[in-house]
Amino acid sequence: MNRPLILVTNDDGITAPGIRKLISIVNEIGDVIVVAPNSPQSGKGHAITINSTLSFEELNLDGPQRDFSCSGTPVDCVKMALDKILPRKPDLVVSGINHGANSSINVIYSGTMSAAVEAGVEGLQAIGFSLSDLKWEADFDQAEEFIKDIVLKTLENPMPKGVVLNVNIPNLKKEEIKGIKVCKQANAKWEESFDERTNPHGKKYYWLTGYFNNMDQSEDADETALANGFISIVPVKFDLTAYEYMNELNSIYQ
Amino acid sequence: MNRPLILVTNDDGITAPGIRKLISIVNEIGDVIVVAPNSPQSGKGHAITINSTLSFEELNLDGPQRDFSCSGTPVDCVKMALDKILPRKPDLVVSGINHGANSSINVIYSGTMSAAVEAGVEGLQAIGFSLSDLKWEADFDQAEEFIKDIVLKTLENPMPKGVVLNVNIPNLKKEEIKGIKVCKQANAKWEESFDERTNPHGKKYYWLTGYFNNMDQSEDADETALANGFISIVPVKFDLTAYEYMNELNSIYQ
Repeated sequence: MNRPLILVTNDDGITAPGIRKLISIVNEIGDVIVVAPNSPQSGKGHAITINSTLSFEELNLDGPQRDFSCSGTPVDCVKMALDKILPRKPDLVVSGINHGANSSINVIYSGTMSAAVEAGVEGLQAIGFSLSDLKWEADFDQAEEFIKDIVLKTLENPMPKGVVLNVNIPNLKKEEIKGIKVCKQANAKWEESFDERTNPHGKKYYWLTGYFNNMDQSEDADETALANGFISIVPVKFDLTAYEYMNELNSIYQ
Repeated sequence: MNRPLILVTNDDGITAPGIRKLISIVNEIGDVIVVAPNSPQSGKGHAITINSTLSFEELNLDGPQRDFSCSGTPVDCVKMALDKILPRKPDLVVSGINHGANSSINVIYSGTMSAAVEAGVEGLQAIGFSLSDLKWEADFDQAEEFIKDIVLKTLENPMPKGVVLNVNIPNLKKEEIKGIKVCKQANAKWEESFDERTNPHGKKYYWLTGYFNNMDQSEDADETALANGFISIVPVKFDLTAYEYMNELNSIYQ
């Protein structure tokens, strides 16, 4: 069998340590092409670039993979890769390793996960990986074996169309990681608290800050798994229809 | 009973004809505060501003409402409104009227719908409205009575937490609109085709273009309803867990 073709992207930018580690892991498994943002794109969600232009260029970085740096968002990178860069549809798209967790509601703000979701929209197998450590120098080595295991299992057990994986890794030594747990998205949110400042011209401006409010203690929630030392895997879909509410809504509009 | 407090936002910017029409409609129903982007934010999805600052200012525009122009994305606008501008939690958040449809997969790219989803994350009642006409001078008057009806019904019949509405309106005269139909998100996608150009310095650059591929002819899909002359309402949720795939995934990771 041919080696699988694997597209790698992220939202922290093509030089981030997290993506370089992910590339080194999947280089052992397949032929790798990297198409990733040329600048940090955290929190860009599913943004696409429609009112300005995009460009990309090939870089010459260490390793057997090919690296393309793209001017757009993570979702733009996936679209550019599929239409302009890859020789054929990839067998797998992996995004990350994100510097910081994308568990629970963070899935909707995350450029890392939005890239994986976009690949899913394109009918591809896709996984987003995130480590619960925001630091640039986070220790991605601890998760290496688990990530390799998840990539191999996904290649062996393709997901149905319309599903991608959101994998979050606790910030622990590998011997402290208790295993891998299939989870649901925890019910959680950010409580905003904008930090108000005044610029030199007397005008107020704000930094978005806040604290994370986990309202979900259920055993199978991703936040619970992470807190208990497990790697969480949430199967994520992009059919957002709340089917369970359709009957009631129908009764209102009859 | 007090008049409801209604927050209005959008992604086309605070001066867009679509939001001005929506404001005029909800002014008849409640006390209205507008917090909307100071520039077009189409396709921004659920992007938030974390690596730069935000600001807002009150404008003096016609009508009884208060208008605040915000420097961020549609989701930023909702967060700023709740933390810094509104006197209390609003009874309803309405977003739009978008210039262009946000049916089917467009819900994930849409700033209009992401603002409504963010309001849902905050535990609020929220509706996104979009008209199937991209033109700035689109005829929003035709939909007025339907929008008023949907706003009133939503205030009278609060949705469960975790659900918001995605309302799309066909580009028809009001007497041609067949009614309102509760729908699911159609299975559809954009087929990318980047338009390649060369800049004056010889470097290639790209515009994102493509065509819309509707793969879903089912009677209850939003695209079908719109094509048949109905206004579509899709109940949208932000718990993205693919519960139907959890058992199989569990068997892979046991």
